Amino acid sequence: MEQVFIYLVPVLGIIGLIVMAIKSAWVTKQETGDETMVELAGHIAKGSMAFLKAEWKVLFYFVVIAGIILGWSGTLVANSSWIIAISFVIGAFLSAFAGYLGMNIATKANVRTTQAAKTSLKKALSVSFTGGSVMGIGVAGLAVLGMGSLFIVFYNMFVLSTGGDVNGDAMATALEVLAGFSLGAESIALFARVGGGIYTKAADVGADLVGKVEAGIPEDDVRNPATIADNVGDNVGDVAGMGADLFGSYVATILASMVLGREIVSNDNFGGIAPILLPLVIAGMGLMFSIIATFFVKISKDTDSVQAALNKGNWISILLTVGASYFLIDYMLPEGELVLSRGGSISFTKMGVFGAVVIGLIVGFLMSIITEYYTSMGKRPVNSIIKQSSTGHATNIIGGLSVGMESTVLPILVLAGGIYGSFAAAGLYGVAIAAAGMMATTAMQLAIDAFGPIADNAGGIAEMSGLPKEVRERTDILDAVGNTTAAAGKGFAIASAALTALALFAAYVGLAGISSIDIYKADVLSGLFVGAMIPFIFSSLAIAAVGRAAMDMVNEVRRQFREIPGIMEYKAKPEYEKCVEISTKASIREMVAPGAIALLSPIIVGFTFGPEVLGGLLAGITVSGVLMGIFQNNAGGAWDNAKKSFEKGVMIDGVMQYKGSEAHKASVTGDTVGDPFKDTSGPSMNILIKLTSIVALVIAPHISETPHGVVSEVEKVEIKKEITYQDGKKIEKVEKIVIN
Amino acid sequence: MEQVFIYLVPVLGIIGLIVMAIKSAWVTKQETGDETMVELAGHIAKGSMAFLKAEWKVLFYFVVIAGIILGWSGTLVANSSWIIAISFVIGAFLSAFAGYLGMNIATKANVRTTQAAKTSLKKALSVSFTGGSVMGIGVAGLAVLGMGSLFIVFYNMFVLSTGGDVNGDAMATALEVLAGFSLGAESIALFARVGGGIYTKAADVGADLVGKVEAGIPEDDVRNPATIADNVGDNVGDVAGMGADLFGSYVATILASMVLGREIVSNDNFGGIAPILLPLVIAGMGLMFSIIATFFVKISKDTDSVQAALNKGNWISILLTVGASYFLIDYMLPEGELVLSRGGSISFTKMGVFGAVVIGLIVGFLMSIITEYYTSMGKRPVNSIIKQSSTGHATNIIGGLSVGMESTVLPILVLAGGIYGSFAAAGLYGVAIAAAGMMATTAMQLAIDAFGPIADNAGGIAEMSGLPKEVRERTDILDAVGNTTAAAGKGFAIASAALTALALFAAYVGLAGISSIDIYKADVLSGLFVGAMIPFIFSSLAIAAVGRAAMDMVNEVRRQFREIPGIMEYKAKPEYEKCVEISTKASIREMVAPGAIALLSPIIVGFTFGPEVLGGLLAGITVSGVLMGIFQNNAGGAWDNAKKSFEKGVMIDGVMQYKGSEAHKASVTGDTVGDPFKDTSGPSMNILIKLTSIVALVIAPHISETPHGVVSEVEKVEIKKEITYQDGKKIEKVEKIVIN
Repeated sequence: MEQVFIYLVPVLGIIGLIVMAIKSAWVTKQETGDETMVELAGHIAKGSMAFLKAEWKVLFYFVVIAGIILGWSGTLVANSSWIIAISFVIGAFLSAFAGYLGMNIATKANVRTTQAAKTSLKKALSVSFTGGSVMGIGVAGLAVLGMGSLFIVFYNMFVLSTGGDVNGDAMATALEVLAGFSLGAESIALFARVGGGIYTKAADVGADLVGKVEAGIPEDDVRNPATIADNVGDNVGDVAGMGADLFGSYVATILASMVLGREIVSNDNFGGIAPILLPLVIAGMGLMFSIIATFFVKISKDTDSVQAALNKGNWISILLTVGASYFLIDYMLPEGELVLSRGGSISFTKMGVFGAVVIGLIVGFLMSIITEYYTSMGKRPVNSIIKQSSTGHATNIIGGLSVGMESTVLPILVLAGGIYGSFAAAGLYGVAIAAAGMMATTAMQLAIDAFGPIADNAGGIAEMSGLPKEVRERTDILDAVGNTTAAAGKGFAIASAALTALALFAAYVGLAGISSIDIYKADVLSGLFVGAMIPFIFSSLAIAAVGRAAMDMVNEVRRQFREIPGIMEYKAKPEYEKCVEISTKASIREMVAPGAIALLSPIIVGFTFGPEVLGGLLAGITVSGVLMGIFQNNAGGAWDNAKKSFEKGVMIDGVMQYKGSEAHKASVTGDTVGDPFKDTSGPSMNILIKLTSIVALVIAPHISETPHGVVSEVEKVEIKKEITYQDGKKIEKVEKIVIN
Repeated sequence: MEQVFIYLVPVLGIIGLIVMAIKSAWVTKQETGDETMVELAGHIAKGSMAFLKAEWKVLFYFVVIAGIILGWSGTLVANSSWIIAISFVIGAFLSAFAGYLGMNIATKANVRTTQAAKTSLKKALSVSFTGGSVMGIGVAGLAVLGMGSLFIVFYNMFVLSTGGDVNGDAMATALEVLAGFSLGAESIALFARVGGGIYTKAADVGADLVGKVEAGIPEDDVRNPATIADNVGDNVGDVAGMGADLFGSYVATILASMVLGREIVSNDNFGGIAPILLPLVIAGMGLMFSIIATFFVKISKDTDSVQAALNKGNWISILLTVGASYFLIDYMLPEGELVLSRGGSISFTKMGVFGAVVIGLIVGFLMSIITEYYTSMGKRPVNSIIKQSSTGHATNIIGGLSVGMESTVLPILVLAGGIYGSFAAAGLYGVAIAAAGMMATTAMQLAIDAFGPIADNAGGIAEMSGLPKEVRERTDILDAVGNTTAAAGKGFAIASAALTALALFAAYVGLAGISSIDIYKADVLSGLFVGAMIPFIFSSLAIAAVGRAAMDMVNEVRRQFREIPGIMEYKAKPEYEKCVEISTKASIREMVAPGAIALLSPIIVGFTFGPEVLGGLLAGITVSGVLMGIFQNNAGGAWDNAKKSFEKGVMIDGVMQYKGSEAHKASVTGDTVGDPFKDTSGPSMNILIKLTSIVALVIAPHISETPHGVVSEVEKVEIKKEITYQDGKKIEKVEKIVIN
């Protein structure tokens, strides 16, 4: 049976890519609108590609160098040699390709959504969501195809051809090499997320500070030289960055589950590899159900709720996945007890594994709604910030920071409960499978996420081309829904990153040859402290980078207003490409330092202090990264919606306050502070915690023999064991001979 | 020998208290100035006592209830019964008394410093620093006397009278009961720090928002109804809060070192208790050297540097302590190897212990200067915030947050290095002794810290009584130095809290009967996550409380300006006591929730999930608390000094900017946001991490038998061991019989 299922996985990936191509062709053949719209969309598309090309150039060198190092170090480990380097390059290429696919469709769908909005909301939703689906299905399809095909290759190469044990070293090597794929994917994701995040906020903050504040022209005004860069930023950050992030999570989760699955001795009909194969099959199946669910996302008339349509699609994909998982797990896994001996030696049944899938889906769902609560208009947290805006900038900031910190409580309890529950259900394999269950519907999640920035861009094009008011109103409806789904999507992304990191962490411990990470040891505790500090310096660098890049942008926009006469009277066109260039250069330059920290810190600590201290470091990064991620995402989201609330007017102490009031100005301060929080440093935490774990996983075999920092001398011992049973008692005789 | 040294400790404490009384009498007999000054000082003193009394009333009930619970639960453990409750009450009483002593002398020294400033800076420094010394010496003296006397009582009661083993259960019980003293001290410290922190910032922010911003009157203006509350706040927060904090750290550090010292089998001339006695003796000795050093803090003419005088005193106390420690350790501890078997079974010599003392002092020194760098005027971090103020409120905030996050890097590396180094020097005992070394000069540290708010108050009184400009100038010099020492003091306080918490953590693990805290176990990892979240919710509550209380204050001040005619023309006096009452009530009300979290979370987790999960929780709280503490303290300090820089004028992009410029207004926003950061939530992190560890230490014996959350079934086994040596090999035969 295993041959059928093994080959099924890449086939499912190919089916996904075919569906994507069909949907993509449908979007492409929609009308593009008038000349101005096409021209503006062209600027945006060109700017987006310019960023991608600049990024690729830097990443090309990175991939070559990292690949060589990896290949060279790979030769130190038996059997894996240069293959891990090839695996790494393929992962990096597919991740970059996934980003390209998303960006390409998003820059086509934006103007076509604007054109569709001339007709109806129904049509506009159809175009924008199909655009999002192309991205979602494409990313998931590439991941399933890539992981599935490489697994076939490595399984044949290392296990079958050598007649190797599926639970032994042969399979370990196969999966170790597969980890290279994940490392490639996640490295590219880091640069895409951080670079994209810096790009989008530098452009946004720069455009607002000079355009809105100094020159007094509205958002998305065609006279603002930075406005194209701002719209490019939506694609670069929210589309390509988010896509690469989830591609990386998806791949890493599957990998971690497979690594842990190897350690389960399973007497199944799949040649003993059912626990390894299961996460791949779940992923492929989830992709299919996500595709089915996308067809349910539509409204029949313009007064229907867009949010309800998206929720319907989401629920269909989740429920189908739950149902199918039940039958799949029941079919694939054997009856009786399954044992994974590490991490507390818990035994579990196949229904425990199903329980873990359900727990993962529940965790993802709860994280999304909690995030939504803390960032939605009309709810207590946002209202409290609105109220505190009435006493000035400072109290608005204090309010937002307080809300952001408070918002960590429920997600952490949910996450802790999820870890506890999925572990109780199926040991460490359960924790990994919970993540895999949560990620199964990634295609749908990403479709919903990517639809937001497309609608946002569509609105921008409508504004810039001076289309009638009702067009902008329709895109605004989509944009508002997109803001809510963006917040919920961030909750989902951080939860998935946390569970993925934990699964990787568990996989790492096994590969590193240690059996515990004891923070009662002074050196491990030091590692924990240093690890927990890394998200702070990473955030600091990201935030400061946005500040610096925004200053450059401000200066350039001021220069253009000064030196190009006639811009304000629509007589001369601003030099959009100059602003695009500034954002591009700044983001490429500024992504290096945080990237280096993420890649190098586990390597330095691992090789200097050994695997257990590195375990402490990873735990520190994960715990602190999750907290800082939630804090920053939610504070930023809440500030944003507090500001937006003033557009419709808010009641403070019995007085209605609108845009332009002192309280509104204070709320703009909060929103600007929140911008890098929620779109640069906050979401980067996801990648940070995953990437450091994958780096650790890849170097694990190299450091597993390194002696541990502060320990007593190593003993060489011979141990003989003899077990007998007598009168219902088990007698174990152990003879330990210490050899000097 | 041990009898001599045991009785020496409380004698040193008494000597300290006598010196304190003499210095206190000297301050009291200084001139108090004119009638207005005396009246204003009277208001401040009255307000301060009103707060203390209100706080004591609540704490009385808390102490009675907690004492009863403790006594009742104490009966569950053999031998300790109600004695731990009495020990707790004494600790609580002495902590409150220490707060009273500090507040009493501070409210006397403030007006006398103002009066002295009429004559010369030299005289003003003398009065204010002597005031600070009274507080420092008093706090340390009470701690040394209290710990020393109780140890004598319990040592006789539990160990000597029963002929008990000094390394066995008898001594364990004696120290367990002594932990009650520390718990009492730290509980009171929590409420003093949090309550005081909320009080001072509610008054400060409230006074500024209406007085400076709305009414346009200067700071410390006698017409502002909240100005007395503001001055009371300096005493309540910075004097009483800081004093209780360091009293708690001091006691906890000594305790933790003693607990770990018990586990060292020491063949010394002190009846085997030299490692237990050593931290007590170091504390007593440090107190003496601090007293000597206070006499070197003086300037001979008004142009001399006040900072240099303080530094001189500080260095003298540190160097004397280092030198004396060398001889003391050499004299007290035995030759040869000392072994503490837990936490990696490291063996060390007595010079290793001395090395740990030196490491502790170095860590404290480095933490102070790093903090100073990040918060001082003219340095890169503060300058970057000044520059970012020129583009508005938002960029000022982004700059401060970025600086605060960045500022965690070096302190964490220093701390991690300190843990690593002191462990390598003398195992876990070394970590505790490093903390003890750092805390040895607490009396001097606290004298330097407490001098700041006295000078601040003195300046306020000068302003309010309309004294000549040169008086205010002299107090301003002292105040400016006080601001720098306050920042450095916060660095010292968080470092001492971190090392203390780690020492307590190590002591806890021993008492809880576990041998490791393995974060590779799912439940322990969940504990780590939840623990790391607690500093976030604690900070959120503290910050939000300041916001709410400040709003109450704003409304009251607005009411008085409206309803009492003639205030602005000096014809009517504002109702100062109303504002004092608001701050008092708010702070008492708002300190309950954070206090409950700190006290209850370890109890709930410990009893529900067992000792190892509680260990994970403690590690999470400590790591995240240290980071959040450093982040908030330094961000707040940097914002404060960025604002202050505008008073003298700053150069931004070639243009001088002064008070009243747009950039200055942006910097005021940062300062206001930073107020609760640096004076409420940031410093509260110290207490949070220490208190949770002490609570764990106290409940450790009660939970040590509780089975662990998620584990495989418990085995009942008989183990027989037989060790033989043959041909240079050690053969260990273990027979393990499992009984069903």
